Amino acid sequence: MSRPDLLVVGAGLIGTSVGLAATAAGWDVVISDVDPDRVSVAAAMGAGRPVTAAAGTGSGAALALVAVPPALVGQTCVQLLTGQPDLIVTHACSVQAAPAAEVEAQLTSFVQRFVGGHPIAGREVSGPAAASADLFVDRPWAICPLEGSSPEAVEAVTALAGACRADPVVLRPREHDELLARLSHAPQIVASALAATLAAMTQDETRLAGTGLRDTTRLADSDPTMWGQIAAANARELAAAVRAVAEPMLALADRLDSADGPAADAEVRALLVRGRAGRAMLPGKHGRRAVPLAVVRCVVPDEPGALARLFADAAADEVNIEDIRVDHSPGQPVGFAELFVAPHDRGRLVAGLRARDWTVTEGAEEAL
Amino acid sequence: MSRPDLLVVGAGLIGTSVGLAATAAGWDVVISDVDPDRVSVAAAMGAGRPVTAAAGTGSGAALALVAVPPALVGQTCVQLLTGQPDLIVTHACSVQAAPAAEVEAQLTSFVQRFVGGHPIAGREVSGPAAASADLFVDRPWAICPLEGSSPEAVEAVTALAGACRADPVVLRPREHDELLARLSHAPQIVASALAATLAAMTQDETRLAGTGLRDTTRLADSDPTMWGQIAAANARELAAAVRAVAEPMLALADRLDSADGPAADAEVRALLVRGRAGRAMLPGKHGRRAVPLAVVRCVVPDEPGALARLFADAAADEVNIEDIRVDHSPGQPVGFAELFVAPHDRGRLVAGLRARDWTVTEGAEEAL
Repeated sequence: MSRPDLLVVGAGLIGTSVGLAATAAGWDVVISDVDPDRVSVAAAMGAGRPVTAAAGTGSGAALALVAVPPALVGQTCVQLLTGQPDLIVTHACSVQAAPAAEVEAQLTSFVQRFVGGHPIAGREVSGPAAASADLFVDRPWAICPLEGSSPEAVEAVTALAGACRADPVVLRPREHDELLARLSHAPQIVASALAATLAAMTQDETRLAGTGLRDTTRLADSDPTMWGQIAAANARELAAAVRAVAEPMLALADRLDSADGPAADAEVRALLVRGRAGRAMLPGKHGRRAVPLAVVRCVVPDEPGALARLFADAAADEVNIEDIRVDHSPGQPVGFAELFVAPHDRGRLVAGLRARDWTVTEGAEEAL
Repeated sequence: MSRPDLLVVGAGLIGTSVGLAATAAGWDVVISDVDPDRVSVAAAMGAGRPVTAAAGTGSGAALALVAVPPALVGQTCVQLLTGQPDLIVTHACSVQAAPAAEVEAQLTSFVQRFVGGHPIAGREVSGPAAASADLFVDRPWAICPLEGSSPEAVEAVTALAGACRADPVVLRPREHDELLARLSHAPQIVASALAATLAAMTQDETRLAGTGLRDTTRLADSDPTMWGQIAAANARELAAAVRAVAEPMLALADRLDSADGPAADAEVRALLVRGRAGRAMLPGKHGRRAVPLAVVRCVVPDEPGALARLFADAAADEVNIEDIRVDHSPGQPVGFAELFVAPHDRGRLVAGLRARDWTVTEGAEEAL
């Protein structure tokens, strides 16, 4: 049997997606999981040849990617480093310092063959069936070498990120954990804390909710087990990041109770202005800068083929649709599609669709 | 000149959309604004005949809808009630108790002709150009009579909500304000407070942000002036709703700093479980119950007509696409479309698309 390029340990969403992407890039991949059913699904999807978890280190792979639940990452890396003396080991954990410390605590020489990693492409769904070879395209892939990591190990992990068509970003483990606490872990706590306040409400009360609350709480559908482990492994940084959001909120609540109308107005206005400035710092989709797009809103009958007709009519005018939002209730007679196009295409699209009897309104420009 | 059915005061997103919807329902509408340019745009879009702000009460309309900035709603209602002794007046403000108190403070008899209202269909964009006759279809429209409001006045406002094809929901002004503080005003503060923490970061740091942070902070793009006024008019209820989110966050931060790993894990896991329970209380799009949908993920080349081909191929199998997410960067060679379909349609769609050479992966079921 030939020596595999990559051993993926853990056939969940991330591991299976890495297996699919590396296989597509021509790598020879083997994949293992403690759950044989997950390995079967991943292998059937084309994410690699199945091996048993115990046989993983016997596969003689050049590189191993550990994609197991956060609490198990450190010990799994140690097992792999111990089991095969020339294996380079990386992982896909949302936390870097804790697993690195577990490796360092075992044997200093292990560090040469160990480089932390974190492809940033999580979703609120999980499991191998949701995996995709494209999950990492143009997304950041944090690469976190320790001081003792060998250049060869860093190179191997960078090559894996490249095979998955991700953007490698090298940074120190602590720096990663501090940034991710602010950019990912605290936002998860915020979304869950907000959604938790709805648990005591009746459905009669929540029917007054708008779409904004749905967006703001979307992350609250995430996996409690995984997030418990992430939080425990990054507790101090997370605590600081949560305070950075919650303390100004409480200070504002106090001001709202004590201030007069104009002062309360000014406080909230100032918070909104800071929030807009912060949001403007976010990259566009796939880690790129936001680009302004024009919106065209169109009534769509709820019937098979209606969206197809709409896109065929838009394509007839050679307009490229950059994004879509569809907004309708299943079973309702009509819905609405918002088509996002380059601003210079908007006039042509509106005229073309109206000429083909679509009911269209032009929206304002939005940054995507 | 005939007597108009409706006077819309304020030609912004909401006023213009109501004008468009009522006109489409056959109502004779006149529309005014302090800014003549906005009235011109609204009238050109078909939202009603333009009148000057001063001439509004001279129009002899049967019903007036006040859709001006929150801080001006109460006094504008009073002016209209004073200026035309048989005019029924409602408004579209996110806050109910404050404008009601302004009306009551003027003249008790005014209350007979006054009914508060709030069509819940806000967006993070504003202005007449973003308006749409369909903005309120199947959305809740809160109707908040005072004790002295006449049945005729309540009926007239309910008819307006019906003309806009909204779902009327009758409740008391205080009850509305308490609910909206939790469902809309506090979520706005949460999104802005979270986004505000990004303002001090560099773009080099924020490039590690994922799509979850973008969703969680989308509301932070909202208008600071409008939200300052809403907060000032609903300060006490908002303060309580903000505390209900922020206090558990701070308590959690303290626990994260002091607890050991397993205890921190358990605390965060419990929060996530509560958050999922809360989110399950949210209605589906357009105020209906969430329905489970299956996701099919498909690679789409970034070229005119690619989405049209995809939808035509989906329609060929008579599968109705309930929702779409498109995920790609302008200028990138490929993007991805997530098609949401009824679970029983998923297998057929996947097989049909694969047969037509699309690269497809099946996602997990999600509630839309």
